[in-house]
Amino acid sequence: MNFASDNVYGVDPRVLQALVAANSRLTDVSYCHDDGSREVEAKLSKIFEREVRAFLVVNGTGANSLALSAICPTFGGVFCHDMSHINTDECNCPELFMGGGKLITMAGKDAKLTPGTVAEKLTQFGHGEHGAKPSALSITNATELGTVYSPAEIKALADVVRPRGMKVHMDGARFANALVSLGCTPAEMTWKAGVDVLSFGGTKNGGMILEAVVFFDTSLADDFLYRRKRTGQLVSKGRFLSAQMLAYLEDDVWLANARRANTLAQTLAKGMEASNRVRLSTPVQANEVFAIMPRPLFETLQAKGAHFYDWPWEGLAEDEIHCRFVVSFATPSEHVEQFLGLLRECA
Amino acid sequence: MNFASDNVYGVDPRVLQALVAANSRLTDVSYCHDDGSREVEAKLSKIFEREVRAFLVVNGTGANSLALSAICPTFGGVFCHDMSHINTDECNCPELFMGGGKLITMAGKDAKLTPGTVAEKLTQFGHGEHGAKPSALSITNATELGTVYSPAEIKALADVVRPRGMKVHMDGARFANALVSLGCTPAEMTWKAGVDVLSFGGTKNGGMILEAVVFFDTSLADDFLYRRKRTGQLVSKGRFLSAQMLAYLEDDVWLANARRANTLAQTLAKGMEASNRVRLSTPVQANEVFAIMPRPLFETLQAKGAHFYDWPWEGLAEDEIHCRFVVSFATPSEHVEQFLGLLRECA
Amino acid sequence: MNFASDNVYGVDPRVLQALVAANSRLTDVSYCHDDGSREVEAKLSKIFEREVRAFLVVNGTGANSLALSAICPTFGGVFCHDMSHINTDECNCPELFMGGGKLITMAGKDAKLTPGTVAEKLTQFGHGEHGAKPSALSITNATELGTVYSPAEIKALADVVRPRGMKVHMDGARFANALVSLGCTPAEMTWKAGVDVLSFGGTKNGGMILEAVVFFDTSLADDFLYRRKRTGQLVSKGRFLSAQMLAYLEDDVWLANARRANTLAQTLAKGMEASNRVRLSTPVQANEVFAIMPRPLFETLQAKGAHFYDWPWEGLAEDEIHCRFVVSFATPSEHVEQFLGLLRECA
Amino acid sequence: MNFASDNVYGVDPRVLQALVAANSRLTDVSYCHDDGSREVEAKLSKIFEREVRAFLVVNGTGANSLALSAICPTFGGVFCHDMSHINTDECNCPELFMGGGKLITMAGKDAKLTPGTVAEKLTQFGHGEHGAKPSALSITNATELGTVYSPAEIKALADVVRPRGMKVHMDGARFANALVSLGCTPAEMTWKAGVDVLSFGGTKNGGMILEAVVFFDTSLADDFLYRRKRTGQLVSKGRFLSAQMLAYLEDDVWLANARRANTLAQTLAKGMEASNRVRLSTPVQANEVFAIMPRPLFETLQAKGAHFYDWPWEGLAEDEIHCRFVVSFATPSEHVEQFLGLLRECA
Repeated sequence: MNFASDNVYGVDPRVLQALVAANSRLTDVSYCHDDGSREVEAKLSKIFEREVRAFLVVNGTGANSLALSAICPTFGGVFCHDMSHINTDECNCPELFMGGGKLITMAGKDAKLTPGTVAEKLTQFGHGEHGAKPSALSITNATELGTVYSPAEIKALADVVRPRGMKVHMDGARFANALVSLGCTPAEMTWKAGVDVLSFGGTKNGGMILEAVVFFDTSLADDFLYRRKRTGQLVSKGRFLSAQMLAYLEDDVWLANARRANTLAQTLAKGMEASNRVRLSTPVQANEVFAIMPRPLFETLQAKGAHFYDWPWEGLAEDEIHCRFVVSFATPSEHVEQFLGLLRECA
Repeated sequence: MNFASDNVYGVDPRVLQALVAANSRLTDVSYCHDDGSREVEAKLSKIFEREVRAFLVVNGTGANSLALSAICPTFGGVFCHDMSHINTDECNCPELFMGGGKLITMAGKDAKLTPGTVAEKLTQFGHGEHGAKPSALSITNATELGTVYSPAEIKALADVVRPRGMKVHMDGARFANALVSLGCTPAEMTWKAGVDVLSFGGTKNGGMILEAVVFFDTSLADDFLYRRKRTGQLVSKGRFLSAQMLAYLEDDVWLANARRANTLAQTLAKGMEASNRVRLSTPVQANEVFAIMPRPLFETLQAKGAHFYDWPWEGLAEDEIHCRFVVSFATPSEHVEQFLGLLRECA
Repeated sequence: MNFASDNVYGVDPRVLQALVAANSRLTDVSYCHDDGSREVEAKLSKIFEREVRAFLVVNGTGANSLALSAICPTFGGVFCHDMSHINTDECNCPELFMGGGKLITMAGKDAKLTPGTVAEKLTQFGHGEHGAKPSALSITNATELGTVYSPAEIKALADVVRPRGMKVHMDGARFANALVSLGCTPAEMTWKAGVDVLSFGGTKNGGMILEAVVFFDTSLADDFLYRRKRTGQLVSKGRFLSAQMLAYLEDDVWLANARRANTLAQTLAKGMEASNRVRLSTPVQANEVFAIMPRPLFETLQAKGAHFYDWPWEGLAEDEIHCRFVVSFATPSEHVEQFLGLLRECA
Repeated sequence: MNFASDNVYGVDPRVLQALVAANSRLTDVSYCHDDGSREVEAKLSKIFEREVRAFLVVNGTGANSLALSAICPTFGGVFCHDMSHINTDECNCPELFMGGGKLITMAGKDAKLTPGTVAEKLTQFGHGEHGAKPSALSITNATELGTVYSPAEIKALADVVRPRGMKVHMDGARFANALVSLGCTPAEMTWKAGVDVLSFGGTKNGGMILEAVVFFDTSLADDFLYRRKRTGQLVSKGRFLSAQMLAYLEDDVWLANARRANTLAQTLAKGMEASNRVRLSTPVQANEVFAIMPRPLFETLQAKGAHFYDWPWEGLAEDEIHCRFVVSFATPSEHVEQFLGLLRECA
């Protein structure tokens, strides 16, 4: 029963098979100039209903940090949630790739920013060159607490910052999970709502190394080949990245995987609520469940083989603990059942 | 007939099989804290006959730039050959990861530095903080011209710089090719000769993403986990990196692959010399052949299906061209024969 | 009536005279290797009652950013108040000089951090290399709201972070103002309380370009000459920096200037309170007064020739404005009287 | 007899007087938004016969590094001479301010680049993102060997790189010395010949802290206020920088000072040649003399009170030494006479 992270699971068999198939070509063009990389761009253009520039990179940290480096100058600031992955889990990589660009953090319920919070923060930047130049907004969808921004919410945020000349980035490490949760189109969730550049993540949802930076404002992609190379995010045997992405997008593998994970997360959440021993801290809208439980229960569950992490939370009672459960495309449904059985037992 | 690069070839079947096998584990610890990553360190410690710290990373550019960031401060200088990969083919990534650290370049026959050249360059750094602080020496083995440094040559270089407090880095993108060429032990080629940190490359020699930074001076590895993360060189599903490396080292796959490539390069080189249409520009000591040919011959060969690159060279006659031929672990020997046949035809 | 900033005022005549005198030497050693620079170090060692390393730099931003670069690695985090100058008024310079090091910000009354807040923040850094490595604490004394940390308060903060291997930096842009306010010794306010490195500012208090980075843990100063040079903080005609600092420290000019400013700030604050039109938002402990007034009053005062800035504040009523008044060493006392008269008039 | 550097001398009395006068204003706008700073821009626009953007900064290293950061992206390369100050004497500051941008160095007689050398070097950058993107050319006038580029020479260089989209920077640490040597106009020496941005140096020629970055392509100056701040090159009491620059430009002080130094350098050079003990290594075209002498003579001269540095040179005989003599605006002509007398004595 492993709910620790999406990343503890392996690779979708279709993606793995694509790697094997890619190896059957004796040679291929290296450094992501292969035909497959071009097909990825074409495929994503179709999915997003407009011409995009798409670049395969190595991981989500690289995708986010690179995307930000293309829209925030060295003297700029990126507005983001204080729980955002770029702020808490990428150990200064955004700052490095941006050449010193600064993350300007804000609090917000359910790990989401609101137009009001962003507008308020902007008022602190009226003293010219003394502060960072507000240059970009970064939001995560699905968020770090497993909630989602609707297209309307994204647009409302973009409407605050775009008139200031700021660009909008979306960290889509769990893009597919948000998309199927919202039931909208990829275009509606991104450029139609004002997003300029997207970290399109697939590793968590079935890939091995499966991440792309996707530019909707393609003028921002000028020189991105240089950016990808100078940050060490360019892979030599690029066919093995493009093959993964093509398999992932083929036959809507990505959507099916996300749907499965989201559904299972709902099952898990409902079962937890029904147990009366655990209360959800946050609405479950993607493939993660956040819940508060008595500390002894936490210890019992762990002892009986359930793996999941505690997670920072404010306002807990003394003997409570806040926990994150991640359900991935590959989490066995029996493990969810088993966990819920365990919970009932303990109740 | 593709001699363009090692990277146009795919992955050794045993390495690929290891990826498939790694996926059979439902879950594994993520972010390179898996057991496999620890086994890699143990295995490399055995191979190098001392306790090493070894970190799996994403590519050679990352390995080199990270290694240098651990031994050269932001205000430091790294002495290196002007043909070195870090200088010509990593688009400022070393400078980025070092936070501005500077490459101090020198010329040298066969892409090799000599103790005299390095000592001479050091004399230019007597004006304290006005120049970069000489902090490291980086050499490539096998070099960018397919030649090798012997342990004695490495030691002679290290002896120039180590008394100055400088550290020694080896770019081993083609480490195995150099090793089997020299017929020495891995220890003799590295720490016994004064090397502190090694980029241990396997991607070119059979891997998909197969690179490690190996510290012989393990005190330099403190905080390297942070360094790897903050540069975007940490992979989440780390088992797929460790599995590759373990398969690569198992049963001396790495050595066999390198031997095969080196031998084939000798065949190619000898055949080329015998043709009387081409002359070698550089001794062939690893898996690369550098040769000068008439430009019309170059065009004929390319037209007839031979892929290889021209390569910068000084002192060519008007109608000559200098070319690089790379033979990889997977280059079919028939392709070498076919190419030599073509050459004889054209002669 | 100019209360906009300390920086709108000029230079203490004794400091200016020292510049003139320094120019009477036909030649002097350049790049801060002059005898004067050495005397500065000796003088500061005496003032701080221990051997310090002291380096003259160009401005407060440079001093802070350089000091932090010496105690926080590229992958590190600096804990600081969210109102701190390094966070709000140095436009990514700390991040630049640190090579991507991150500011970890916290709120706190009166622009001060508390041990509890810092300890609580530290609990968020238990996930290893995914987050920045907590490396330093930076506090400002006097703070950005004109309050002061007592030696005991500083020690209590240092006691939280030093056991974690973190270093302590003090931004002393208004060091003298804090010192005379506290009535303690320079040693008590710094290294005896756990401070490792200090930005010792004098520009605001009578200098033209008068800032030093002072290391109490002198081992941290190794290679600082390189750091100062590589960040463009080294001045060629260094005698003009050392002359300023020596004149500033001579005959306790620095202390007298700070006392005068602090006293005048008290006069201003008391007069403002007595007016019943204005209420202080923050205790007045150095040379700044922060106050809330009706917006129409603000406009009237400005119209009648009083210069001072509004300043961000939470929880204001609709028609209120929060303002900062800075009193410098050179603010004419008649201007304070004139302003208070104006205020009485308006009341 | 001090010929060690321009920087060992002090400040022109008129510049010093301007500092004193500037202090007579009780208050002035801070952070280089004072009227004086605007006047500097207007004055330089007049001198350069077109609208320029001019920014006062702290030192030559800062001016150069900032100027380059405005024309070379983080993944870019700056072509320059291997003896250039940015390459040898600014300890990685250009790399830092550029965020990793790389200096691409070339040799060249008399410290000058030629169109042929630059064009040849450009041919090495045909492999796209693997190498730095050629982004700028930087030349120094007068050069580090005291020679000058004529407007025609500058134009010939610019003509090689501008069609490639590269920008042209001039390091004018000794701009005035080059200008009076050439007898052309400031416009002819800069933008009319293809220069986009200039480091306009005055510190060596009579200032205390007297440097500006001047943009002829004013679109490059967008956001330069942020750049200057984020690199710690913004001074709070800016009136003391603008006052220096205005005094320096007033009544052609700058040109008179440079003429005096150049003339004295000619006297020195001719006297040295006449001595038959010393031979010039380089044509004397500005305020520096480079000469080769027997080592014992060097020691005798130093022992008798002449201060000057040895300077790297190739092809010296065993017992020879190569030396630099700098004559500044303030070098007493009697010291030149005294030195030449000494030399005659020794002959």
